[in-house]
Amino acid sequence: MTDSDFKELKAIDQMVCHWLEELMHQAQELVQSHLDVQHKDGDTRNLVTNVDRENERWLDQKIRTFNPEAKIISEEGFGDHPLDMEGDVWFVDPIDGTMNFVHEHTDFAIMVALYRDGQPLLGWIADVMGNDIYHGGPAIGVQINQQQLPASPDLQLSQSILMLSGRRLVAGDYGYKTLAQKALAFRVIGSAGITFSYLLKGQVNGYFSKLMPWDVAAGRVLAESLGFIVTNLDGQALNMLSSNTVLIATDSTHHEIVTMLKG
Amino acid sequence: MTDSDFKELKAIDQMVCHWLEELMHQAQELVQSHLDVQHKDGDTRNLVTNVDRENERWLDQKIRTFNPEAKIISEEGFGDHPLDMEGDVWFVDPIDGTMNFVHEHTDFAIMVALYRDGQPLLGWIADVMGNDIYHGGPAIGVQINQQQLPASPDLQLSQSILMLSGRRLVAGDYGYKTLAQKALAFRVIGSAGITFSYLLKGQVNGYFSKLMPWDVAAGRVLAESLGFIVTNLDGQALNMLSSNTVLIATDSTHHEIVTMLKG
Repeated sequence: MTDSDFKELKAIDQMVCHWLEELMHQAQELVQSHLDVQHKDGDTRNLVTNVDRENERWLDQKIRTFNPEAKIISEEGFGDHPLDMEGDVWFVDPIDGTMNFVHEHTDFAIMVALYRDGQPLLGWIADVMGNDIYHGGPAIGVQINQQQLPASPDLQLSQSILMLSGRRLVAGDYGYKTLAQKALAFRVIGSAGITFSYLLKGQVNGYFSKLMPWDVAAGRVLAESLGFIVTNLDGQALNMLSSNTVLIATDSTHHEIVTMLKG
Repeated sequence: MTDSDFKELKAIDQMVCHWLEELMHQAQELVQSHLDVQHKDGDTRNLVTNVDRENERWLDQKIRTFNPEAKIISEEGFGDHPLDMEGDVWFVDPIDGTMNFVHEHTDFAIMVALYRDGQPLLGWIADVMGNDIYHGGPAIGVQINQQQLPASPDLQLSQSILMLSGRRLVAGDYGYKTLAQKALAFRVIGSAGITFSYLLKGQVNGYFSKLMPWDVAAGRVLAESLGFIVTNLDGQALNMLSSNTVLIATDSTHHEIVTMLKG
């Protein structure tokens, strides 16, 4: 990487941090206001609000102004539907954990990521009520509010707290119950972004969930940069253009889980 | 209640708030230090640290000095083993969510409660890393850091986020999976005290877990004072001298759950 590439990444990192600070402070005010809540696809557990839509429109416009030739993959329909990962591809999740946003008024996030020719380049996760932004990538390191985060220590599964999708666990999807039983403990918190914040701080050691591209794109960049392995359940690479059953863990735990679930 | 009874309760409330502020600030420092972690009863998931023991010894001494004729029910062995609830009975949980304290460095609590002749009188929950103390009771109301909390709105089960014991859910204990499926969503966070903080702020609408007396005593006082119903799974009163399968929810949700699980 040349010095000018590094400077470009640092500049983009700071620019998006400023965008997210603005949206984060807005959302902190809006969380107590009257929200226009709707169900998506007739599913009473799949919520969208006016804030989701307004955040996405605002972020997509910012990205298009800065990087007009890029493609955008975003949750609420203002983005593109690219068929490949060539060039610059941005991912936007305007409110991750909308049910928590509406009901709990905490534990929700705003996420953005940038991939270039399929390679994870930069990621941002704003923990809105925690007032924290996690940001960075493989070339510039991972920071919380401009402070470097250390790599996570490697642990065995029996010593690991795992984050799981509660909905997938109760639906009986393959692997969830086994992991819930074999891990030291498991937690369910209802937001991929907030789950990633626990991983990045080394508070938990793994995460297993079915995720859409905008749910995982930013967290993948940041978690991989701190040494986590991010794959499908069978250990294969994610397809960033579709949903994936995502397994994220430090090396030993990841290896143990993939071997166990294959066996 | 006479004016002097009210003043007595307010004075005890403030005294214990000061005790918990001191322990909370200590624990905020200690959470990053080297902890002496041991397993209880040969169970690798049942942890105790030097901080649990030192907090309990300190709190039990404070209580005995203030109220020498009272009985104390506390987790780590410095209390008494009363056979009835006559007179003043104090409950102490010196660190609730010890696994989170050790591994996550967040989402743990310190809890104290006072019952008189079996009646819930006062409760205190310190969310250590949140730097918040929930305190009060039926006579003086419920406050967070001296600010009054409102009663929780009543919701149907299908509109409720429930907190569940992850361990009981995965063990297949009666009722857990049904509730996880019927609720709007469920969460697992690994600390009764922090779970109560979500209930008291109206962020979630119910909690279902097997709890020891010191896990539930403070939360019961506070939750009942805000309108939650606190019973066993079959709708009967708790036995404060033994473990209980505890069901806490607002009126409609509680009624719906008890009816459903009897059916």
